Amino acid sequence: MRKILLIGAGKSTSALIKYLKEKSNEEKLQLIIGDLSLANAEKFAGHHPNTKAIQLDIFKADQRQEAIKNADIVISMLPARFHIEVAKDCVNFNKNLVTASYVSDEMQALDEEVKQKGLTFMNEIGVDPGIDHMSAMQVIDRIRAKGGKMLLFESFTGGLVAPESDTNLWNYKFTWNPRNVVVAGQGGAAVFMQEGKYKYIPYHRLFRRTEFLEVENYGRFEGLANRDSLKYRSVYGLDSIKTLYRGTLRRVGFSKAWNMFVQLGMTDDTYTLQGSEEMSYRDFVNSFLPYSPTDSVELKTRYNLKIDQDDVMWEKLLELDIFNPHKKIGIKNATPAQALQKILEEKWTLAPNDKDMIVMYHKFGYEIDGKTNQIDSTMVHLGEDQTYTAMAKTVGLPVGIATLKILNKEITTTGVLRPITKEIYDPILKELAENGIVFKEKEREYLGYNEDNVVG
Amino acid sequence: MRKILLIGAGKSTSALIKYLKEKSNEEKLQLIIGDLSLANAEKFAGHHPNTKAIQLDIFKADQRQEAIKNADIVISMLPARFHIEVAKDCVNFNKNLVTASYVSDEMQALDEEVKQKGLTFMNEIGVDPGIDHMSAMQVIDRIRAKGGKMLLFESFTGGLVAPESDTNLWNYKFTWNPRNVVVAGQGGAAVFMQEGKYKYIPYHRLFRRTEFLEVENYGRFEGLANRDSLKYRSVYGLDSIKTLYRGTLRRVGFSKAWNMFVQLGMTDDTYTLQGSEEMSYRDFVNSFLPYSPTDSVELKTRYNLKIDQDDVMWEKLLELDIFNPHKKIGIKNATPAQALQKILEEKWTLAPNDKDMIVMYHKFGYEIDGKTNQIDSTMVHLGEDQTYTAMAKTVGLPVGIATLKILNKEITTTGVLRPITKEIYDPILKELAENGIVFKEKEREYLGYNEDNVVG
Repeated sequence: MRKILLIGAGKSTSALIKYLKEKSNEEKLQLIIGDLSLANAEKFAGHHPNTKAIQLDIFKADQRQEAIKNADIVISMLPARFHIEVAKDCVNFNKNLVTASYVSDEMQALDEEVKQKGLTFMNEIGVDPGIDHMSAMQVIDRIRAKGGKMLLFESFTGGLVAPESDTNLWNYKFTWNPRNVVVAGQGGAAVFMQEGKYKYIPYHRLFRRTEFLEVENYGRFEGLANRDSLKYRSVYGLDSIKTLYRGTLRRVGFSKAWNMFVQLGMTDDTYTLQGSEEMSYRDFVNSFLPYSPTDSVELKTRYNLKIDQDDVMWEKLLELDIFNPHKKIGIKNATPAQALQKILEEKWTLAPNDKDMIVMYHKFGYEIDGKTNQIDSTMVHLGEDQTYTAMAKTVGLPVGIATLKILNKEITTTGVLRPITKEIYDPILKELAENGIVFKEKEREYLGYNEDNVVG
Repeated sequence: MRKILLIGAGKSTSALIKYLKEKSNEEKLQLIIGDLSLANAEKFAGHHPNTKAIQLDIFKADQRQEAIKNADIVISMLPARFHIEVAKDCVNFNKNLVTASYVSDEMQALDEEVKQKGLTFMNEIGVDPGIDHMSAMQVIDRIRAKGGKMLLFESFTGGLVAPESDTNLWNYKFTWNPRNVVVAGQGGAAVFMQEGKYKYIPYHRLFRRTEFLEVENYGRFEGLANRDSLKYRSVYGLDSIKTLYRGTLRRVGFSKAWNMFVQLGMTDDTYTLQGSEEMSYRDFVNSFLPYSPTDSVELKTRYNLKIDQDDVMWEKLLELDIFNPHKKIGIKNATPAQALQKILEEKWTLAPNDKDMIVMYHKFGYEIDGKTNQIDSTMVHLGEDQTYTAMAKTVGLPVGIATLKILNKEITTTGVLRPITKEIYDPILKELAENGIVFKEKEREYLGYNEDNVVG
């Protein structure tokens, strides 16, 4: 039996564990699930003969090292900031490592040593980052192999609610970490490239500068810019590309409505509200509006945001019960963002039967033999239930597949890696497709960055 | 002769030096002007018999200490961050100190020692902070002496261009540090109190939440909130006040137009623009607008800001020549704020004969014997020319007056001080009035915080 040590058993590991269990007899695997909570590890291990649950506190070096020493390969599903000690032990004990997290500077610094020892540390092998890298690089490399030159690359991913569970005016529910959604885009202007020009969007305009994207059978979405679209420019070999834009997908209308929170100042996470614990939802709204001896919070809100009482934006606010004078924020020293999250979680949490959905959309513009062309590539994946969510599947499957392929020496590249080379993405994308994670491609006329599709 | 050491001879010291020269015979003063540039010190010293210019590098401890040791009192007009070494020497050599700067934490930490040695370190004795403290506390203390209870305090100061020199559509020119104007309000939400409620304005809405103020003979101004209106709440003894608001004055319409820069993202000072040195003004504007194969930067700007071509806001942009494709930013690694400053300085710099103006407006709401009342107090001071500007006079005169009164033991309070007690503000305000810096008071009906003056 080959021993796989999985550190950290959270919501995102359900599909990963299921995959490894299913492969365990044929592949002769023992899966050791280590978690701070033994009960949690046991829950995920279940009564499967090839799994074992252990209590594992990663801050106890001897416990951590003992577990890693006994493994043939290690998967860390810990929060990203906790990987590094695990990674250092993997170097010391000559173990390969798989994570779904962004390569940190500390992780990158191990690259030389990892290579010298002939090890593979595969990172960013979830959905975003992960499937986005692989599906994009497969097309980009194919275009290049034909002698094409990349002109445009736009890439969008969204974690959304499945159409059948899409039951509120916002067309949105929290399918992942709500906090990340509330503070998304903060910390500086968004930067990207359009037709060779650097473009900047300040945070307070981010939700008003979206573009529309149509996905067959799933209708229209809107894409809004990530903070740093240029992050993978060199990694993807796109240093001379003219248009480079990475973003997040929402249903059309979400951003326009979300912008109300941004405009009022409710998404700010840099200061705390006085008296937040005892503050009612209504007080919370009112703290961003001028005092008036006569006017209601409702009227002041509509006036401040310049919306009519029959605007769907107004209905969206009412749906959140945000003017309720009795419901309390109930959090000490809450930032506006934390208070807003509290209000939203009440309405945007998935109901027991709700399903989620992952949508990905890439655009590749290129020139070949003097002719321009564009490929649009899309992927939609639906959750099965609240355990095997689309998020858990699209994160867990590539992690599981990569782990087996490294264990089986199908992937042998050494170093601190992202899944951006053919040797890695081809076999993984193939197996993902067998598991229903499929990209559909469409050829389009290349019009450059051209939101209104103006011809000539 | 009593020796006054003035460290740092800048634009703001002209009126101070003039005042001290004029007093020097009658008061038996020798004014020693120390500056990093001897030529500069000599320029300010002139050929006056009671002045002396010395070269003084404050980073050379022996030079600095020698100068301080020989003085009877020290005035530091250095940038605020450089005061502390001077202050420590003043403690060591038992010298009183005067600065126009905010009390830093480091300065505050000297308080105990300064008191033990029986010294007076007078800070915040310029215009804002300075005259604002004194003129406000004089009225607040008077109200309290009569048994009144403070309900409302609003205070606004503006450094503006004098009406006779008010020649552009923005009704604004730089009369002080342009950088402070460009980045004003950044770094977090503005916080203040209205009728017992904490209120917050995010930066991107700051310039849309102004209030109007009328000053006799000078017309209407607009006030916009400072970042922290609560800063002096305890210092002024206003812990139980219901409305507390401190702000900056501009001519009506300035903020609405300035908001265009904020909305576009041009005031951001947290990142640098790619290729800023070679960037034209037009490119600069375009970097905040989406690429379009067909539309002009002009149309995109108007559309983005939702302004018509016959809107005065548009005229204001054109007046700045901000769409010029030939003029270059010419600054390496410029932040948007630095680039914008460059563009504005070209148009908003005072012409040789232009004069500046300082405007201050306080509102005091209070209750006495069960009846409410309000006093509005205003001050306008005009510059004489570009040497004796309103700014230089309103900063320099209180510094000079305080220095003499400390030297003459008319002010004897010890410690690290602000001019907020009667012993200090009464004699200084009296002498300021003799120099034409006068506050006019007006009684008004108290309506609480009530922007539209809605009665009952």
